[in-house]
Amino acid sequence: MTALKKNVAVVLVSGGLDSATCLAIARDRGFDCYALSFDYGQKSSSELDAARLVAASGNVLDHKIIELNMGTIGGSALTDDDISVPEQESEGIPVTYVPARNTVFLSYALAWAEVLNAQAIFIGVNALDYSGYPDCRPEYIEAFQTLINLATKVGVEGSVISLETPLIDLSKAEIIKTGAGLSVDYAVTVSCYQADSEGRACGQCDSCRFRSRGFKNAEVEDPTRYQ
Amino acid sequence: MTALKKNVAVVLVSGGLDSATCLAIARDRGFDCYALSFDYGQKSSSELDAARLVAASGNVLDHKIIELNMGTIGGSALTDDDISVPEQESEGIPVTYVPARNTVFLSYALAWAEVLNAQAIFIGVNALDYSGYPDCRPEYIEAFQTLINLATKVGVEGSVISLETPLIDLSKAEIIKTGAGLSVDYAVTVSCYQADSEGRACGQCDSCRFRSRGFKNAEVEDPTRYQ
Repeated sequence: MTALKKNVAVVLVSGGLDSATCLAIARDRGFDCYALSFDYGQKSSSELDAARLVAASGNVLDHKIIELNMGTIGGSALTDDDISVPEQESEGIPVTYVPARNTVFLSYALAWAEVLNAQAIFIGVNALDYSGYPDCRPEYIEAFQTLINLATKVGVEGSVISLETPLIDLSKAEIIKTGAGLSVDYAVTVSCYQADSEGRACGQCDSCRFRSRGFKNAEVEDPTRYQ
Repeated sequence: MTALKKNVAVVLVSGGLDSATCLAIARDRGFDCYALSFDYGQKSSSELDAARLVAASGNVLDHKIIELNMGTIGGSALTDDDISVPEQESEGIPVTYVPARNTVFLSYALAWAEVLNAQAIFIGVNALDYSGYPDCRPEYIEAFQTLINLATKVGVEGSVISLETPLIDLSKAEIIKTGAGLSVDYAVTVSCYQADSEGRACGQCDSCRFRSRGFKNAEVEDPTRYQ
């Protein structure tokens, strides 16, 4: 029987505003955090630079950046050079969708959680501002929790590695208010899909607009640096 | 609305006996197959050499080998240099267990299936000879099917990428009989966890013993080469 370590969590850290807030919440709940990021052929390398800063400022015990080579299977404007990032919001699922992204990310988080005997995995998905990604919905998260319980040695033994989504019902403004209350340094986070090498945002893409609107609605000063 | 290609499948190919049979079954059912293998820091490189031979002899349309860097999170005798492969069968879950392995493999298969608009994913798991891996059980596969339906753009649109496990209820002998009937060349497959660089098996590990017993019980000539 493997005992899970109740105060240990794996936290997915992208370098964006949401995952920085998610990490702060995990720490506020008393977890010792292990940060996990992915190099999946992002066009914008500043995303990973931001992830390093977020992990460091979150005092994590370890930060791993796993290279995914997702680009070899293509299919998204974020990783495929043949598709450009659109500036306009459109109906339905955006072309910036990376196939099976959260499924792949959570699979690695699960693998690491099992090795660490971590009791929880934190992911900063939210269903309200989710931009039409199917793998950010509550029903998807519930299905992954079921999978965790069946996939793992500890699950078979009756313990639960809990998949925590503290942002899932929050608006962008509520996320920012929560993070500001936990002293998250949003200046180091990057949300823009087309940020430059200094981490400065384009101010035009969906992600930039969600973020800017969030700070306004939260009445929190916006430290975002623009190009 | 994305139309799935009914005759296109992604097939997980490890280079072992089971996945070679699984690929032959997929082709026999009329699927055009895309083979997917993983370099996850296996100690035995002959496994990937075998995967290349299996994919080539199975006339797949494409074969991708994705580097996982699973070794960086450790936790298994197959990838971690600090743990040696045991020669004796023991009760419960073996130390050769790779954390979340099938979850990670299937996540990539799902990503590629989505990009290809493939209608099916084939994986050669079987529950009878499964050596105690939790992620080879039917209930695990059902949970992953549920996840697929919720995770994907096509799933949201009401189509189903079907997770196919044609070997799940078969014994090793039944798998070998099936494959022999489909002219699978088992000489190129490698099941051994400690095969040498020429693909010759140790004859001692659990996997070798399951395989040898399977050929005997199937009354099929065993082409396995030993060290």
